[in-house]
Amino acid sequence: MTMFFLTPLLVAVVCILIAWIFKNADGNMERRKGETRARAQARPWVDEDLKDSSDLHPVEEDADDWQDSEENVEHIPFSHTRYPEKEMVKRSQEFYELLNKRRSVRFISNEQVPMEVIDNVIKAAGTAPSGAHTEPWTFVVVKDPDVKHKIRQIIEEEEEINYLKRMGRQWVTDLKKLRTNWIKEYLDTAPVLILIFKQVHGFAANGKRKVHYYNEISVSIACGLLLAALQNAGLVTVTTTPLNCGPRLRELLDRPTNEKLLMLLPVGYPSKEATVPDLTRKPLDQIMVTV
Amino acid sequence: MTMFFLTPLLVAVVCILIAWIFKNADGNMERRKGETRARAQARPWVDEDLKDSSDLHPVEEDADDWQDSEENVEHIPFSHTRYPEKEMVKRSQEFYELLNKRRSVRFISNEQVPMEVIDNVIKAAGTAPSGAHTEPWTFVVVKDPDVKHKIRQIIEEEEEINYLKRMGRQWVTDLKKLRTNWIKEYLDTAPVLILIFKQVHGFAANGKRKVHYYNEISVSIACGLLLAALQNAGLVTVTTTPLNCGPRLRELLDRPTNEKLLMLLPVGYPSKEATVPDLTRKPLDQIMVTV
Repeated sequence: MTMFFLTPLLVAVVCILIAWIFKNADGNMERRKGETRARAQARPWVDEDLKDSSDLHPVEEDADDWQDSEENVEHIPFSHTRYPEKEMVKRSQEFYELLNKRRSVRFISNEQVPMEVIDNVIKAAGTAPSGAHTEPWTFVVVKDPDVKHKIRQIIEEEEEINYLKRMGRQWVTDLKKLRTNWIKEYLDTAPVLILIFKQVHGFAANGKRKVHYYNEISVSIACGLLLAALQNAGLVTVTTTPLNCGPRLRELLDRPTNEKLLMLLPVGYPSKEATVPDLTRKPLDQIMVTV
Repeated sequence: MTMFFLTPLLVAVVCILIAWIFKNADGNMERRKGETRARAQARPWVDEDLKDSSDLHPVEEDADDWQDSEENVEHIPFSHTRYPEKEMVKRSQEFYELLNKRRSVRFISNEQVPMEVIDNVIKAAGTAPSGAHTEPWTFVVVKDPDVKHKIRQIIEEEEEINYLKRMGRQWVTDLKKLRTNWIKEYLDTAPVLILIFKQVHGFAANGKRKVHYYNEISVSIACGLLLAALQNAGLVTVTTTPLNCGPRLRELLDRPTNEKLLMLLPVGYPSKEATVPDLTRKPLDQIMVTV
């Protein structure tokens, strides 16, 4: 009898133990699954410094070498323009001086700009390298005043929400200063807005999704070329990444869901009263290390 | 007797049920935790299209306007060089043609390049805009043959692992073709390797971490300017993002942990036998949309 009486209790204790083991094993299993996944992507020595998010990109065959998917393409001799050393130094000096005059300008005149120049600067941007030569960019050039105004409304609406939210947190903040940021007049006045979308994936011939590795880096490089081209042509802009406006602007401009807004550049001539903050850039020895 | 006999069995069944419930509840809790975290970062209107990862950047006051932290800086009139329209068109056309000749070149001669040119192209890269003018870039210029060789060893070691892994999956792949990718001779021959690090955060005067918003985009834009500057000076390179090598290369070059490798550019003159894949670029109407 005592034996039978104890048995249920014992069984209960054993079962609770089993439940506990079960739960832990499960956790371990999930952890292990996570680790396996991580290891499939990462390498033992990478795990030493998991914070290197540069290594968290999905691994694909030779994805680090941006043109490998093109290995089946014919290879041709590379033709190169070489300048004498003196000219190289001069050219590089002059190019630096040109780019160093670039400033982010938020006061843009409503004067029209030649559209041929806009075509050329976007063609220049389109020469950027891209992961596996996917060219994952779309440049939407907005000239239509109504569309520009709708873009402004969307961005200012979001900004207003940011602003009101902040107000709760920062009573003492100077209202006037914030107002300059919240009201984006250049979205109406600039003759051209260029919205740059990254295509986060493409489509293969069979309709399947084609991964676009490093699409954000590729498109940002293209934006770098675009900024250089604008500066070279004598146009001004300001680099903006409108917070939380991506989906609404994408819908407004009727872009597909595989395209995500990366940047918005209002482009034109500076207005006569344009000012810029009196900033300096880091000197070379603060950005360059020689080994 | 029968009752006592059944009880242990019943208890066992109940316990297994409890174990099962336990396990599921745990999973749900974790899922819910994940959701809460996601919601804390996102906004209601963003949730309509959660795939817009462009909106997953941490929200900060006016982080979309890249110079707002500078609002306390004095504002000065902006001086601008304006060209006649004809010249704008010509300049933009010529700049496009210059950049359009750029190709990713993997065959680099061991001939030395003028270091003044390297200084100038990095100064040009350093004129890039950056989130809140943080200038979150470090350009490590490697000339030392031993260090270059160590870099090559690290990268080829990683590439070999990629290669061996792939072998298991892709028996039919042409070995020779892969070999060209795995062996990165240019890491030894190029007179200069430029390793570009993004500073994922900085430090405020009080020693606290200072977030660097959009650091990857900013540094990629700087890389775009760097590529344009190299092309303008008559030097060649290939854009590489060495997979999984970040932490080891960072340690080799003695960079702090807030710096993550974004890109590696081997720089020099093309070797005489340099070839490039016979690629074309998308025409303008495939990358530009006008509204």
